[in-house]
Amino acid sequence: MTTQVNLMFGIHSHQPVGNFGGVFEEAYRNCYRPFLETLARHPGIRAALHYSGPLLEWIEENEPDYIDIIASLAERGQIEMLSGGFYEPILPIIPRDDALGQIQMMNDYIKRRFGQKARGLWLTERVWEPCLPSLIAQAGLNYTVIDETHFAYAGLGPKDMFGYYLTEDDGREVAVFPIDKHLRYYIPFKLPEDTIDYLRSVSEEGKTTDITYGDDGEKFGVWPETYKWVYTEGYLEKLFSMLEANSDWIKMPTFAEFIESHPPMGRIYLPAASYDEMMEWALPSRSTVKYQEIVEKLTSDGVYQDYRPFIRGGFWRNFLVKYPEANQMHKKMIHVSRKVNAIKGKAAAAGRRELWRGQCNCPYWHGLFGGLYLNYLRFANYSSLLRAEKIADDATHSDSSKVHVEHTDYDCDGHKELLVSTRDYGVCLSPGYGGSVTEIDYRPKCFNMTDVLSRRPESYHRKIKEASHQSKTEEVKSIHDIVRVKEAGLEKKLNYDWYDRRCFLDHFIRPGTTIEAFARADHDEEGDFVNQPYELVGKKKSGDKLIVTLKRDGHLWRQRCAIPVSVEKSLAISGESGIVANYAVRAGKKPIDSTLFAVELNLTLLAGDNEDRYYEIPGVALSRNRMNSIGAVDSVSLVRLVDRWMGIAIEIRYEPAATFWRFPVETVSQSEGGFERTYQGSSVTAVWPLSLEADDSANYSVSLSVEQL
Amino acid sequence: MTTQVNLMFGIHSHQPVGNFGGVFEEAYRNCYRPFLETLARHPGIRAALHYSGPLLEWIEENEPDYIDIIASLAERGQIEMLSGGFYEPILPIIPRDDALGQIQMMNDYIKRRFGQKARGLWLTERVWEPCLPSLIAQAGLNYTVIDETHFAYAGLGPKDMFGYYLTEDDGREVAVFPIDKHLRYYIPFKLPEDTIDYLRSVSEEGKTTDITYGDDGEKFGVWPETYKWVYTEGYLEKLFSMLEANSDWIKMPTFAEFIESHPPMGRIYLPAASYDEMMEWALPSRSTVKYQEIVEKLTSDGVYQDYRPFIRGGFWRNFLVKYPEANQMHKKMIHVSRKVNAIKGKAAAAGRRELWRGQCNCPYWHGLFGGLYLNYLRFANYSSLLRAEKIADDATHSDSSKVHVEHTDYDCDGHKELLVSTRDYGVCLSPGYGGSVTEIDYRPKCFNMTDVLSRRPESYHRKIKEASHQSKTEEVKSIHDIVRVKEAGLEKKLNYDWYDRRCFLDHFIRPGTTIEAFARADHDEEGDFVNQPYELVGKKKSGDKLIVTLKRDGHLWRQRCAIPVSVEKSLAISGESGIVANYAVRAGKKPIDSTLFAVELNLTLLAGDNEDRYYEIPGVALSRNRMNSIGAVDSVSLVRLVDRWMGIAIEIRYEPAATFWRFPVETVSQSEGGFERTYQGSSVTAVWPLSLEADDSANYSVSLSVEQL
Repeated sequence: MTTQVNLMFGIHSHQPVGNFGGVFEEAYRNCYRPFLETLARHPGIRAALHYSGPLLEWIEENEPDYIDIIASLAERGQIEMLSGGFYEPILPIIPRDDALGQIQMMNDYIKRRFGQKARGLWLTERVWEPCLPSLIAQAGLNYTVIDETHFAYAGLGPKDMFGYYLTEDDGREVAVFPIDKHLRYYIPFKLPEDTIDYLRSVSEEGKTTDITYGDDGEKFGVWPETYKWVYTEGYLEKLFSMLEANSDWIKMPTFAEFIESHPPMGRIYLPAASYDEMMEWALPSRSTVKYQEIVEKLTSDGVYQDYRPFIRGGFWRNFLVKYPEANQMHKKMIHVSRKVNAIKGKAAAAGRRELWRGQCNCPYWHGLFGGLYLNYLRFANYSSLLRAEKIADDATHSDSSKVHVEHTDYDCDGHKELLVSTRDYGVCLSPGYGGSVTEIDYRPKCFNMTDVLSRRPESYHRKIKEASHQSKTEEVKSIHDIVRVKEAGLEKKLNYDWYDRRCFLDHFIRPGTTIEAFARADHDEEGDFVNQPYELVGKKKSGDKLIVTLKRDGHLWRQRCAIPVSVEKSLAISGESGIVANYAVRAGKKPIDSTLFAVELNLTLLAGDNEDRYYEIPGVALSRNRMNSIGAVDSVSLVRLVDRWMGIAIEIRYEPAATFWRFPVETVSQSEGGFERTYQGSSVTAVWPLSLEADDSANYSVSLSVEQL
Repeated sequence: MTTQVNLMFGIHSHQPVGNFGGVFEEAYRNCYRPFLETLARHPGIRAALHYSGPLLEWIEENEPDYIDIIASLAERGQIEMLSGGFYEPILPIIPRDDALGQIQMMNDYIKRRFGQKARGLWLTERVWEPCLPSLIAQAGLNYTVIDETHFAYAGLGPKDMFGYYLTEDDGREVAVFPIDKHLRYYIPFKLPEDTIDYLRSVSEEGKTTDITYGDDGEKFGVWPETYKWVYTEGYLEKLFSMLEANSDWIKMPTFAEFIESHPPMGRIYLPAASYDEMMEWALPSRSTVKYQEIVEKLTSDGVYQDYRPFIRGGFWRNFLVKYPEANQMHKKMIHVSRKVNAIKGKAAAAGRRELWRGQCNCPYWHGLFGGLYLNYLRFANYSSLLRAEKIADDATHSDSSKVHVEHTDYDCDGHKELLVSTRDYGVCLSPGYGGSVTEIDYRPKCFNMTDVLSRRPESYHRKIKEASHQSKTEEVKSIHDIVRVKEAGLEKKLNYDWYDRRCFLDHFIRPGTTIEAFARADHDEEGDFVNQPYELVGKKKSGDKLIVTLKRDGHLWRQRCAIPVSVEKSLAISGESGIVANYAVRAGKKPIDSTLFAVELNLTLLAGDNEDRYYEIPGVALSRNRMNSIGAVDSVSLVRLVDRWMGIAIEIRYEPAATFWRFPVETVSQSEGGFERTYQGSSVTAVWPLSLEADDSANYSVSLSVEQL
């Protein structure tokens, strides 16, 4: 006897803030549109739909009638719209008021455009933390939908993964539906009849037969090969028809309807978790290897599925440790949130919208593909955050020509940073790490020019190395083992940085070092300044200017001896002239015999290989070399990094004239199409030969300012 | 070369709210006092000390000079006092304002009595959740001390477990020190020189050598055998002397001093976790077995230590699922917190203090020993919560003779309960579960008479069963395998309840059932009423009285047929006469042939075998039988459960006279001394033989009230 089955069907569709228009367009054409049209032809298919805010905003602007189709399905009661943080943030890592505000924004949107009071929440990347129920309840919602994984971690067995459970925080309760893992493998990858058979088999086992499906909408047309299968070959049409044809025993209530008419399976508390893979990615790279080992061991012992609930990877928030750049953006976001939430009125609303846009999750983490590694996603988030900051600053500071300073441990590294904001520049100065500058915002363009990602090992890099040896072996690889690389010789680009790619990093380099070695971060560093703490000797305001003096008494490390050397740098930051850094390098009781003193800036113009972005050195042939060029030029006093697209030029002046080194910082990461190189920024360095008598000193100056074109 | 080692030394001492005076006294004499005296003799030993509030309150009252000794050590800078939630609550599961208030209360206490501004927090049972850093920072503290386990779960390796890390939530940062696991095994269990050798070996490996020790103070004298070893045989004296003798390379800064002078090891985010064992205990009993299997498998494969960071048990909050009684207390606590935090002024302060006392962690969970299984700890928490509730109600309700009602899903089971409060009684009525009463408070005594723990399987019960077969086998057991049971035949007491032990549970029992079978919860239940939902037909207020009418149309299940039967019960709850339940049992279209209708109450007078607590039936020889007696008495109209210690008698009246069944509800759990039986309450049941013609009905009445003696 086939018992009745309740199938709750949820689909989540998302594109990040800052994704390319072409990507939106293609996804719309191949996926979002045909999916909805198919759904509209099958009124018997009830579904819960979630669209993230960035996607909705693109649709509103480019395909507004799509919204009307959704509204009509909502009106005829076929679909239930799911809320969520509007710009798809990882809810537990943004300030609670922002999380609440973003959910309410989506609730309002759903009410206004689709005429529904939202009842459920799609949880971004299913990143759950135990304090979420009170947030979700406070936002007026009753339920969310989460992977089985979370439930298994709480101790539930596979036979408990049905219906819904109640959970709570602070006594405020929320229903949680466990997503059936099997269905996620069946839909849309197996034959429609397999899904029906699966539902029948479950119901015949006589267990509770209330099953939740929940997955990414992009599997229906965006994922490689899926368009042909799902639409051209008619998969979705068939699936929906078969579900309708079996409506005598397969019921499709919405989640909200189901809750109204069914009691919970019980109470539950879910630990901080996400889906398995996400938790693996959140581990430090070296731990990932150990994790993969234990999974492989248990799999080959044939017991992995049995003990899977007890095998767990890392914790989402550690992406902020694994990637300092993600931390930098996160702390900027927290900082801007404080500022924005302190202002009132109309400006507050505009500021919050930009802030929330800058909370979009994608560039805060990296799993298999893209995310943090895509510089245009980071750029989009920073642009939004800087717009929000500007709105808040304008509303707060009566006189924008003044300089504002905060001295606080901004990035939670145990050292206080200086946050300096002038009319045109936002600067974050980090005495604790090489006396470096970690952020330079050009405020008229809301542009963070220092957003350069360092090159780090990723656990998947070993595949590239293995692939490069492939031709030398006799083995024939199966299709799954083939590593696709978008260009030859990529293994040679696997350089790893031993320091973060910041600005005003002070090097002492062994003479004879090549620009190539320096570019590989594989040179002989003689000094101990680059990533070591400087002392904050003084800071004083003078008009629209802040002057900060930093000093480090360090050493040159040469065979068998440490030669004392001190670097004092005084950075003047002002609204008009940007940053002027004056250096005094002083020998101690021992002379310093021929080294290279070098000051490195890491800057980004977003594209390495683009005719609108180039170097310009007055009177030098280098001019118009693109940002991914590598090389050295002697006797340079002025370099301009021109960005015609943005309409700015970053001017860098050296005094005395220096040898100018430049190279692109490029990472190697995975994408759907294979391994690829990504331009993250350009390292530009002034190099001066230096020899000093005991107690003698030398002076240098490096300045940076931006000109609008 | 031996590098310098920094050893941070933290000790946590705690006794729960409601523990017996004798236990406090013995622990003080054998442990707290000699420990502090030894410490005072060794000014070179720097330590961080934490005492929980319940312990401090006992010391203040009984041994006030002890406080002065601590103060003198604090004054001479030898010790740093650690803060924490005053009454030792599990911080993440209590409302945030209460958590903050409890920490501030401890901060204030430390300031007032010891003259220190608290800097660090001892985290109760090291139950960490990711939202804690913002709470700890908000409470004005800078650090906490947590097991290595948490750090391993974040992906750190054994060589990273030194110094401290910074973590944050909402941008508010806190330092976290990882407790060295090896030291916890060395101190106080191995020779003092082993500890010194261990410190030397660590320092010789040239790793960072900043090591944290943190553990329970009770290991120094309270744990079995430790008094003799630690004091009589001079362990602690020797350890301290050796540490002082090696002070040229073993430095003992306090945690706060260490933070001032050392940078962090890095940033980190810790997932929701506690120590390994706690996470195992938090699993449902059936999952525990699987968990133990995988640990055993990996151990026998010799790889457990290697992969341990990826092997995890459950999540603390699921104790509230595993034990509905813990959930009941937790939700009561949340409910009372709402009430108390809504009032102002002097009453609010008094109310909060009682509320916070009722948040003491011990009876909210159960691991190996005691906790939730100890009825006097639950009693203490409930008393405090009820005192807090009374203070809040008195401040809120102008007329205490009125009846107050709330209709809400109080316990998060998906069904709404009725919370009724009259002058003398607090009643929680649960239509969704047998139309039962889950709580009856007698408010003049702040006494919850229904706090009866159900009997459930515990994973350790199998040891008792195995032990009972022991004599039959030839094997010789090693000392570790011997199972100590405090009485013979304990395996026969392993009865498990299939329903929660509440009040006004309606049974239909097969005639001929014995009281013994009923006491084992192993009788033939013919009805489907006990734990099934009743419909709330009506509720109306009338003066100081609330009348609630509940109804269930259910069945008697007999071989091959279901006989319809409906039960309507109307409960009148008032300030003077307690609860009067009038029953109408009605047959449907089929007659009902001889069943037993029975109404069960589960009540507790806290002690099963005590001459001050007994049954009294006017004119019947049963009188003065203790609460752990079992048996049946015919034709009973009135039963009194007398408690001379508390000065009350619970009067239960039956109309018509019924056969009266009584038996003790006793659990079997582990204690330090071995397996033991614990009286949890008494089941008192009225049994009436019932036969009905079709459409006919019968009426019964059961009433409960309390008389002060």
